[in-house]
Amino acid sequence: MNSFRFHNPTKLIFGRHGVEQLGAQVAPYGTSILLVYGGGSIRKSGLYDKVMEQLKGIGAAVQELSGVEPNPRLTTVKRGIELCREHNVTFILAVGGGSVIDAAKAVAVGVPYEGDVWDFCMHRAEIQEALPLGTILTLSATGSEMNGNSVITNWEEKQKRSFGSIHAYPQFSILDPELTFTVPANQTANGAVDIMSHVFEQYFSLTTNTPLQERFCESILRTVVENAPVAIKEPQNYEARENLMLCGTYALNGGMISVGMQNDWASHGIEHEISAIYDIAHGAGLSIVFPNWMRYVYKERVDRFVQYAERVWGIEREDRSDEDMAIAGIEATRAFFTSIGAPATLKDVGIGAESLDRMAEEAVRFGPIGSFKKLDKQDVKAILESCL
Amino acid sequence: MNSFRFHNPTKLIFGRHGVEQLGAQVAPYGTSILLVYGGGSIRKSGLYDKVMEQLKGIGAAVQELSGVEPNPRLTTVKRGIELCREHNVTFILAVGGGSVIDAAKAVAVGVPYEGDVWDFCMHRAEIQEALPLGTILTLSATGSEMNGNSVITNWEEKQKRSFGSIHAYPQFSILDPELTFTVPANQTANGAVDIMSHVFEQYFSLTTNTPLQERFCESILRTVVENAPVAIKEPQNYEARENLMLCGTYALNGGMISVGMQNDWASHGIEHEISAIYDIAHGAGLSIVFPNWMRYVYKERVDRFVQYAERVWGIEREDRSDEDMAIAGIEATRAFFTSIGAPATLKDVGIGAESLDRMAEEAVRFGPIGSFKKLDKQDVKAILESCL
Repeated sequence: MNSFRFHNPTKLIFGRHGVEQLGAQVAPYGTSILLVYGGGSIRKSGLYDKVMEQLKGIGAAVQELSGVEPNPRLTTVKRGIELCREHNVTFILAVGGGSVIDAAKAVAVGVPYEGDVWDFCMHRAEIQEALPLGTILTLSATGSEMNGNSVITNWEEKQKRSFGSIHAYPQFSILDPELTFTVPANQTANGAVDIMSHVFEQYFSLTTNTPLQERFCESILRTVVENAPVAIKEPQNYEARENLMLCGTYALNGGMISVGMQNDWASHGIEHEISAIYDIAHGAGLSIVFPNWMRYVYKERVDRFVQYAERVWGIEREDRSDEDMAIAGIEATRAFFTSIGAPATLKDVGIGAESLDRMAEEAVRFGPIGSFKKLDKQDVKAILESCL
Repeated sequence: MNSFRFHNPTKLIFGRHGVEQLGAQVAPYGTSILLVYGGGSIRKSGLYDKVMEQLKGIGAAVQELSGVEPNPRLTTVKRGIELCREHNVTFILAVGGGSVIDAAKAVAVGVPYEGDVWDFCMHRAEIQEALPLGTILTLSATGSEMNGNSVITNWEEKQKRSFGSIHAYPQFSILDPELTFTVPANQTANGAVDIMSHVFEQYFSLTTNTPLQERFCESILRTVVENAPVAIKEPQNYEARENLMLCGTYALNGGMISVGMQNDWASHGIEHEISAIYDIAHGAGLSIVFPNWMRYVYKERVDRFVQYAERVWGIEREDRSDEDMAIAGIEATRAFFTSIGAPATLKDVGIGAESLDRMAEEAVRFGPIGSFKKLDKQDVKAILESCL
């Protein structure tokens, strides 16, 4: 394995009725709060009222940044930054899924920064500080509740870019699996694909001597494969929901499962170009891209793909060659995604070939992407074409 | 799974030459340092000089608490507390294995406490604050480098007791696998047993619906089983040493692998009574106790022991009953411990039956121990007898 640093200061509060602990968690951070949330489902579910009751219980003044988009937009983030500055906000509370949390992080790092917060996404400035933030998670998917990453879309420029910083880790995250009971089947499926994709980005690595990390990755993959179909079929199955929630958080909590491994992240880069233009769900985009990425790159390290087929999908050797095993694992991945209702082609989500060239161009704007196999514009375009 | 909180603020710095980052890590915590270490092996290896060079590089004044015992003693801890108070120490640096780190933690929590630090071990007071501490690890075993636990021996009273606190987590831990190249075979074996035992305490649990956590536990166990024999045979095998080091840290880093699972810890309680009287190595004691504990309790949940046999030891079903599978897994554990040179009986370490009654009495001083099966004095005595 490679040398590494690992530091994840986020406190997890996991289980039923976690929201009842909110007031005590927020209290140390002052009483001027920015509440960040999405399209209003937290009002319908009653969660909004519970949150407000907790915040009022500690005498907090609450500003609201609502309507955060599924692919959160820079304009929304800037609105949040203005609110914080205007009201001297001391703490940001994100209530929602990854998009809401990502937006909250961008607000948090943007408030103390004099320049344009987009600078951080474009590698033009380094994050030095942030307002403290906390989260209440309502969707098992991104892991944003326990890491310092954020993905923001500049809709005017059709660019989707990310930043990461130790300063953007939540102080705490409240994870109550019951809050995901109302997540519809397609979003549950997209979340499962997202979780598995995060693991893939770490697991398919050229770094050698990482047996523990590989097994951790496989542990999450198998647990998602077992539990996602149950949660889709029985949305109020607490056991399945809690397993998915823990998998989502551990899959991307600052790299805990893949310490010392070089990560890839090319597929995420490609997907970001699709959803920057077409505003599709991130998980849906990953479901389309990842098996095609796998087919394009597996020869770089067939042994890892053989291990994946055996350990994650239980595919037996029989008389298969290494290559046949690798392909069987990739096909099992596609079949699983399809079985839970996730899309397989760009056509499935209404996207044609018209922007492939532009997406490939943008994906490599800062140079070739990926590390398992370095991809230039032609590679990205070839993968996108196989997604049609 | 159960509701849980998880919070592990320790920063890991892992890889070759980590000591070169020491100065920068210590600098934020002031310049009056207490250096804690053991019997002088760090002087022989040259590590002491490297540490002092780093500390002098930031202009630190260094006090030394050396000679920390393998089962660190309360008298030594008190000596450290006095040193800190006398010299207004601002930061404690532990350089060594679990014993040295545990002693440093006890000093850290003892300094700001007006009463007797032993109060924390006897549940007579709660830890409210601590001096900050950091570690440089030289032995893969206890996980103390990334948790808030400490075990201290009151030699006069023949009592070995533990405490745990969020305030006692190291601020950082520097993990350089090369620093373990000089660990002799028997200590490497004891360390491997210790790591596996920490996992056992978490894995053999009555908590249901914990598929991810179980797989994480199995991941560590399999990785130790693969790598410990290599490290013993080839002490300078970096790959084996780094895998063991990561396993040791992850096995007990605040419960990361077993979030939401009830832990047992009865075997540790029993072992502490043995080493409180006889001063044997903790890992050696665990090697004797654990397989006997397993045999005594496996009927509480045969399915978990069947899974253990299958997934950790690869034992095939063939025509075995559940019970036969469970026993086969326990026997495989004993055989593995023996194969790496760890002791199997109290006789192997020169201990007779004379103190069994007293040990059993002390083990349950605060009530029955364990949760997989609650053990009273008679149970503990029966297990100890099977260890003879």
